[in-house]
Amino acid sequence: MNLPISPEKIMNVGLGFWSSKTLLSAIELELFTHLAKNPLPSEALREELGVHPRSARDFFDALVAMGFLLREKDLYRNTPETDLYLDKAKQTYIGGILEMANGRLYSFWGSLTEALRTGKQQNESKQGGEIFEVLYSDPKRLKSFLNGMTGLSRLSGKAIAERFPWQRYQYFIDVGCAQGAVPLELALAHPHLQGAGFDLPQVEPIFKEYIAAHGLSERIKFRSGNFMKEPLPPADVLVMGHILHDWDLETKQMLLAKAYQALPAGGALIVHESLIDDARQQNSFGLLMSLNMLIETPGGFDFSGADCIQWMLDAGFKEAYAEPLGGPNGMVVGIK
Amino acid sequence: MNLPISPEKIMNVGLGFWSSKTLLSAIELELFTHLAKNPLPSEALREELGVHPRSARDFFDALVAMGFLLREKDLYRNTPETDLYLDKAKQTYIGGILEMANGRLYSFWGSLTEALRTGKQQNESKQGGEIFEVLYSDPKRLKSFLNGMTGLSRLSGKAIAERFPWQRYQYFIDVGCAQGAVPLELALAHPHLQGAGFDLPQVEPIFKEYIAAHGLSERIKFRSGNFMKEPLPPADVLVMGHILHDWDLETKQMLLAKAYQALPAGGALIVHESLIDDARQQNSFGLLMSLNMLIETPGGFDFSGADCIQWMLDAGFKEAYAEPLGGPNGMVVGIK
Repeated sequence: MNLPISPEKIMNVGLGFWSSKTLLSAIELELFTHLAKNPLPSEALREELGVHPRSARDFFDALVAMGFLLREKDLYRNTPETDLYLDKAKQTYIGGILEMANGRLYSFWGSLTEALRTGKQQNESKQGGEIFEVLYSDPKRLKSFLNGMTGLSRLSGKAIAERFPWQRYQYFIDVGCAQGAVPLELALAHPHLQGAGFDLPQVEPIFKEYIAAHGLSERIKFRSGNFMKEPLPPADVLVMGHILHDWDLETKQMLLAKAYQALPAGGALIVHESLIDDARQQNSFGLLMSLNMLIETPGGFDFSGADCIQWMLDAGFKEAYAEPLGGPNGMVVGIK
Repeated sequence: MNLPISPEKIMNVGLGFWSSKTLLSAIELELFTHLAKNPLPSEALREELGVHPRSARDFFDALVAMGFLLREKDLYRNTPETDLYLDKAKQTYIGGILEMANGRLYSFWGSLTEALRTGKQQNESKQGGEIFEVLYSDPKRLKSFLNGMTGLSRLSGKAIAERFPWQRYQYFIDVGCAQGAVPLELALAHPHLQGAGFDLPQVEPIFKEYIAAHGLSERIKFRSGNFMKEPLPPADVLVMGHILHDWDLETKQMLLAKAYQALPAGGALIVHESLIDDARQQNSFGLLMSLNMLIETPGGFDFSGADCIQWMLDAGFKEAYAEPLGGPNGMVVGIK
């Protein structure tokens, strides 16, 4: 090669949807759940998944080369990562968000150019309807969405349980709690805490089932309501995860004002999201998540820790600080 | 984080279609071609591209964080890589293949699970029609496809020009030559060589225009024909790039037999592709390209150097060897 500058990264990212969709199809076919029971030779694996002989080995070996499967001779097994995170039988499963990505987002992102040109969302709303109405109207789709949110928030919940001074507080409410991944992690880590998840009434049975399955129904309740239309319920600590990014600036500020109202002096608001780095140069995941809000919502966008700190101070919070939570995630804490 | 095993790679690849589609949309909007003329502040760039204000900065900054743009204060410029390879005004442009990926493959890959279950292709052929008939029936689509093939083959052509002992040979034919990227590189590097591109008659004007633009019409001719129906034309060296992977094993063997027939004793066949590593454990690109053949063709699949060497020996070639060409590409040379 004479050229000192390689096109390889351009080609790898430009055709990156190949590896992405291959992993998503493997999750859809529950390949990792099957292999978690026991390693299988290619023909047995193919039969279990109902995959056609033509490309089965290419599919499995692509997953080997991508680092999501191990193969010794003809025996395929999960890697430690895929066994822990992509086996549906384990509580550590984070595939819900990727099931949603496979079932909805992959095709919606096909219209990214149109979204960029028009500023308009490109999901179910194109056939009429508002995203949350659409998602919440069908119980099966809702459960899949809420489960997806668990995949997105569970590890952040663990980190928030570790990094926030919970010993100073008694009662929290997770605003827009979805299935309850964060309340669960907080209650597991801190036996003195009581709390509730606050979300639309349709969420209640799914939340209660999830919390009950972990034996925490005594300490973690559900409060039904609509944070767009009602005040937020009072609590020592309010948590909002992946909520603010759904909305335009005015609505973000309205929600922060409601949170301020609902807290006592000294109370805390914890906002956690895929925060963009303050210089907007590093965290591509946060910036791409913001483009995902373009695809999914009429006015939502992601933001940096510095942005959120400023909005909190503008809303009257006495102090505010940002802290990383691992991966692309971070929290912004405001103290009233 | 308590967990020693991180889910980050799973999330990054699973949502990897976000970064992929973002780069593809930037190429579609000719963002890098605009910035190659001169760096621009965000508002001017937004206006040049016709992008809506809502997410323009997130789009540009995502490309910064992904490493495809540089930003100083509010001034955006190309990286050396994107300036060289994604500026349409430069002969080094490789965006054609990614334009095709954006316009066709991204949506077809949305049906990967169906392809895996059925073994059936998922492209224009689903609406009837055979892929090459469909591609070749519309001159604009054909030019875009052939230009895409140039993006895929140009750097391999340069490497083949360097790594094959051309001084021993006089006359070559590139079988399934598309726009003529490989003949061009061979002729540029070796003034003693004469040759031709062999492809369907619809390709002729596009090939001739491309070769003429480089002043090589005297040494590089076009020969029209159909390698499925006719013998291959005789030559000292035959080249087949990204051809064999389009077809099932029987057709691959038929084409190798035709190549053997067309060569003199001592003549050479050069097959170049994104070769899968012999152990099928490393080169994910080759394996994913094979899944792309599932999406695009009724029976095509990619293969390793060892596979191709064996097929060549079975076809009667006296010796055969494989050699890397840079990136995921490699060549297999058979000597009659």
